[in-house]
Amino acid sequence: MTEATNIAMIRAAAERIKGHARRTPLLSSQFLDDIAGRRVFVKPECLQHTGSFKFRGAWSAISAMDPVQRARGVIAFSSGNHAQGVALAATRHGTSSVIIMPADAPQLKIENTKALGAEVVLYDRDTEDRDEIGARLSADRDLTLIKPFDNALVIAGQGTSGLEIAEDAKALGIENADVLVCCGGGGLTSGIALACKADAPTLRVRPVEPEGFDDVKRSLASGAIQRNTATSGNICDAIVTPQPGDLTFPIMHRLCGPGLSVSETEALQAMAQAFLRLKLVAEPGGAVALAAALYHPDQIEGDTVIVTISGGNVDPAQFQTALATLS
Amino acid sequence: MTEATNIAMIRAAAERIKGHARRTPLLSSQFLDDIAGRRVFVKPECLQHTGSFKFRGAWSAISAMDPVQRARGVIAFSSGNHAQGVALAATRHGTSSVIIMPADAPQLKIENTKALGAEVVLYDRDTEDRDEIGARLSADRDLTLIKPFDNALVIAGQGTSGLEIAEDAKALGIENADVLVCCGGGGLTSGIALACKADAPTLRVRPVEPEGFDDVKRSLASGAIQRNTATSGNICDAIVTPQPGDLTFPIMHRLCGPGLSVSETEALQAMAQAFLRLKLVAEPGGAVALAAALYHPDQIEGDTVIVTISGGNVDPAQFQTALATLS
Repeated sequence: MTEATNIAMIRAAAERIKGHARRTPLLSSQFLDDIAGRRVFVKPECLQHTGSFKFRGAWSAISAMDPVQRARGVIAFSSGNHAQGVALAATRHGTSSVIIMPADAPQLKIENTKALGAEVVLYDRDTEDRDEIGARLSADRDLTLIKPFDNALVIAGQGTSGLEIAEDAKALGIENADVLVCCGGGGLTSGIALACKADAPTLRVRPVEPEGFDDVKRSLASGAIQRNTATSGNICDAIVTPQPGDLTFPIMHRLCGPGLSVSETEALQAMAQAFLRLKLVAEPGGAVALAAALYHPDQIEGDTVIVTISGGNVDPAQFQTALATLS
Repeated sequence: MTEATNIAMIRAAAERIKGHARRTPLLSSQFLDDIAGRRVFVKPECLQHTGSFKFRGAWSAISAMDPVQRARGVIAFSSGNHAQGVALAATRHGTSSVIIMPADAPQLKIENTKALGAEVVLYDRDTEDRDEIGARLSADRDLTLIKPFDNALVIAGQGTSGLEIAEDAKALGIENADVLVCCGGGGLTSGIALACKADAPTLRVRPVEPEGFDDVKRSLASGAIQRNTATSGNICDAIVTPQPGDLTFPIMHRLCGPGLSVSETEALQAMAQAFLRLKLVAEPGGAVALAAALYHPDQIEGDTVIVTISGGNVDPAQFQTALATLS
């Protein structure tokens, strides 16, 4: 599947997803508008099944598979949101999933992934090669690999949230807005950019990353893929990736405005505001777009900002750290 | 306004509210189904404007007023969710609101109510009579009192959430379900009961209260209004009231199934499950219906349970107490 994602693929994914993924709304609060100095609308993908937008891409990819191939099962590498999205989408399609996770992943995420129907295979990050394990399992059992972002159908699935943003923006009369998207490998950002280009071309889609892990921002600025020097060590772990994807970067380069980046403290403060003003649970990586809207208003052009909260899978202890920023 | 609320009034309120109140969905999680032993659907009114369903009733009452009378302003007694609902609904109608709050109410709630446009008048619970203060202000300025639940138009507004429940239940093919409603004075419960009686008559609407403050449950069981011995001293403060309303009780008596009650610990545990599985912030009083669904399954008849999360206005410290039940 090397065909580039296009709007027709996103619309087709939306048809397949209908009635299966949650159609999330745009939420708002006057208190957030006051902080940001402009209207703020929030797309709460933390309310999506499995607590993140990843279910959309997983459903898109699995629902498009040849039924015979699908029946053999799917496989994914993930310690987090993609794992849960693939597990649930596979189970609901009546097929099996193997998720390869590091043995030191949080116990809750391992248990959730199992509870959603996956066979979890743990590996030791220091002594084992996950790609080798994955290749062996795939070959032995003829499993189909579902990549987390560099897969045209996954990008199409994430783009369905962009169709919803465009539809709601139109209904609200929003024309001059920045659409800020929490960005790891770029699957969600590129999908939303394609959808908005087609259905709401006056909106500017822009990636938001953690400071120090702003590979997409730097790649967009330089016009070529840049890597992060570190690939761990930030609380926004869900969106820390080595570099933008081979499929996602050309889309973002063509369609996105400049990237933004926020500090860990700003991400935690944005989580606290989502708690206080929207009654939503955001994870750190899922709060970076809201953080950019609230704490970097000078870098935003539009009279309105639309932000994704991309996920809400956060440990209680980390959530308490975020709430502590309020006092 | 002593006319009893009827379904026509609820449908009229729904027309007035359209585009102003949020149309909340029904959310679900397989993990909650597993705990409850049946399908669980959650109506997240914590996502409503001002963080609780109270905005519906306030909007319903204020939008139905004679414009000349409305322009003089409204007044309410409340230390919590009703205050914020009335303040925002008044501001959005371009009129003023006076909210009489105890001086020892949480500072955040006082500030929020002011920020939403209200004039807050504080009184000393020990030395001053709030009714006397309210009567004097109302007379001096010809303000209209918006009662929190014993007002037919407020009940009609709360009932609009029941129309939505009935519509979504029909779309999901739900017929044999208990609808559990967090219950204080009974405005939300009686409104939902009227709406379901009309649009989804096979659903059983039932109030849920904190243990020891189960005046509605006992009133329904005995057939006559019963009072609570205490009116404070429970974390579910938002739904602690002395007794059911004169308007709400006859409706509940005619239409509701038996009441349920839950412990404070169960309410906190339900808040933690809402955090973990739905990514929603619930306040203790807003979590009692979910608590009943999860921890009192033997008292529920239907193959499905629909629960309201009636509000999410909780202090960070109290939320942390809820999260601590997970460890």
